[in-house]
Amino acid sequence: MDGQNSKSTTIDDKMSCQPLSHHNTRNLLDSVDAFLFDCDGVIWKGDALIDGVPETLEKLRSMGKKLIFVTNNSTKSRKQYAKKFLSLGISVSEDEIFSSSFAAAMYLKVNQFPKEKKVYVIGEEGIGEELELAGFTSLGGPEDGKKTVHLKPNYLFEHDKNVGAVVVGLDQYINFYKLQYGTLCIRENPGCLFIATNRDAVGHLTDQQEWPGAGCMVAAICGTTQKEPIVVGKPSTFLMDFLLQKFNIPTSRMCMVGDRLDTDILFGQNAGCTTLLVLSGVTNMSDLQDSSNLIRPEYFTNQVSDIIRLL
Amino acid sequence: MDGQNSKSTTIDDKMSCQPLSHHNTRNLLDSVDAFLFDCDGVIWKGDALIDGVPETLEKLRSMGKKLIFVTNNSTKSRKQYAKKFLSLGISVSEDEIFSSSFAAAMYLKVNQFPKEKKVYVIGEEGIGEELELAGFTSLGGPEDGKKTVHLKPNYLFEHDKNVGAVVVGLDQYINFYKLQYGTLCIRENPGCLFIATNRDAVGHLTDQQEWPGAGCMVAAICGTTQKEPIVVGKPSTFLMDFLLQKFNIPTSRMCMVGDRLDTDILFGQNAGCTTLLVLSGVTNMSDLQDSSNLIRPEYFTNQVSDIIRLL
Repeated sequence: MDGQNSKSTTIDDKMSCQPLSHHNTRNLLDSVDAFLFDCDGVIWKGDALIDGVPETLEKLRSMGKKLIFVTNNSTKSRKQYAKKFLSLGISVSEDEIFSSSFAAAMYLKVNQFPKEKKVYVIGEEGIGEELELAGFTSLGGPEDGKKTVHLKPNYLFEHDKNVGAVVVGLDQYINFYKLQYGTLCIRENPGCLFIATNRDAVGHLTDQQEWPGAGCMVAAICGTTQKEPIVVGKPSTFLMDFLLQKFNIPTSRMCMVGDRLDTDILFGQNAGCTTLLVLSGVTNMSDLQDSSNLIRPEYFTNQVSDIIRLL
Repeated sequence: MDGQNSKSTTIDDKMSCQPLSHHNTRNLLDSVDAFLFDCDGVIWKGDALIDGVPETLEKLRSMGKKLIFVTNNSTKSRKQYAKKFLSLGISVSEDEIFSSSFAAAMYLKVNQFPKEKKVYVIGEEGIGEELELAGFTSLGGPEDGKKTVHLKPNYLFEHDKNVGAVVVGLDQYINFYKLQYGTLCIRENPGCLFIATNRDAVGHLTDQQEWPGAGCMVAAICGTTQKEPIVVGKPSTFLMDFLLQKFNIPTSRMCMVGDRLDTDILFGQNAGCTTLLVLSGVTNMSDLQDSSNLIRPEYFTNQVSDIIRLL
């Protein structure tokens, strides 16, 4: 995190954090070829679309801007996300979606994880689906959600010695069985990787309140294994490096739009993107202005539709 | 932990770590009025008594030594531990047992936790029993072990606003419901305490292997709340301060006997006790001699019965 801290301090020093206005929106659009959008709190909140999003995306596309959707939520695959977009009346191709479930699969692919090894999943459907699409064999996940442990003398909990990576993401069905399985793989299988989709403490799983995020399950495995994970979602730079290889656009010509300072905005800043905070999600004006907050976006505004409204 | 680190460094500097021998065992017995024993890995392993323990305890009692049993395992109450001792053929009174479940209840009592407030438990039977014996009202624990969450739009997870403390210990029945309940209390109830019985990463829940310890569940709650707990079990000094008030023996006349360097031995050292590591539990000779290990007991030996055998 040292690099991140020094980076955010530098940015904090040199940048004023400006509200989006008629004047600077034009500058923003002129200086940027691609918009990276976080989803929850930016495009939708729970199952409800945020006002004015479809028109804004359409307008940006008509201006020739590339749109990329980057989400730390690992519970869905890219295919499932494309369906969710469609159900909300927005047409987005799978290729435009970068979820942390996909990032986990891509991390293994980029690092030539052997196809004969297996991946144990603490998480929901999205991770297993993406692993399978990338050609990997996974176990655990939803299948282990109802498994229980009955401790008795001489009981030995067996685990697959061919597991070479444990991927941990948000898991509503977390249980002692999965915690023991993942821990045994990491502690006992030589060289077994410990990959976290992300470390968000909480997330808006419902509109009404926040719920434990992947950071909860990841911390639990850190607690038993006393090891730190490789994080592939925001704010780690893995996903950005991957995006850079895929699209031919320099990060200086990208704008990261998000509702979280410590993941979205930090992610954008770490990569050298322009950053725009929207106040339609978890961060409010007083969080942004709080003296303890060192992460300052270049721009902030109420919601994404302001980009078009202010033009 | 600063104090603990500086203390262990001092001890490390001035002490050689001696194997127990005929000569120094006599010195040890002469210099000590009370023995504090860890249980798992010292007295028993899972459900099996370790060789020679009953005779050793009997002999020490006949020499006028006070015996105190200190365990970080919070799943049982003191009453349940006394039963376990009896089932293994050892007669121990409840007053001689100090479990981290009891420590949690005593922490609240010593700090005058209001009786009209409630305690939410992530843990097993022992914690609720000790809280009740101390006059507190608890909820959660085993009762919430089968509860599930069904996320749907507009769903609001309700929690009791009268919860003033969340106690987290080892919980084989950990689930998303409990994680959300505990998190909401800590994040939303003003002044709500976050108490950890202990932070052991793993423990020998069965003879055959290690399982996630309280450190797993505690870390999960740290992950969502982004807060650090008050730890009442070993190696925190709360339990020792409590013991000191109860027994009229200076810590310099006590010997802590345990199988874990980072809890038992550190706990003894933090308090100024003589320390004896037994190799009948989780620590082996190479762990002790590893250059990365900074925690060195004054004495070490294979098992507690050596104390009498070497005399």
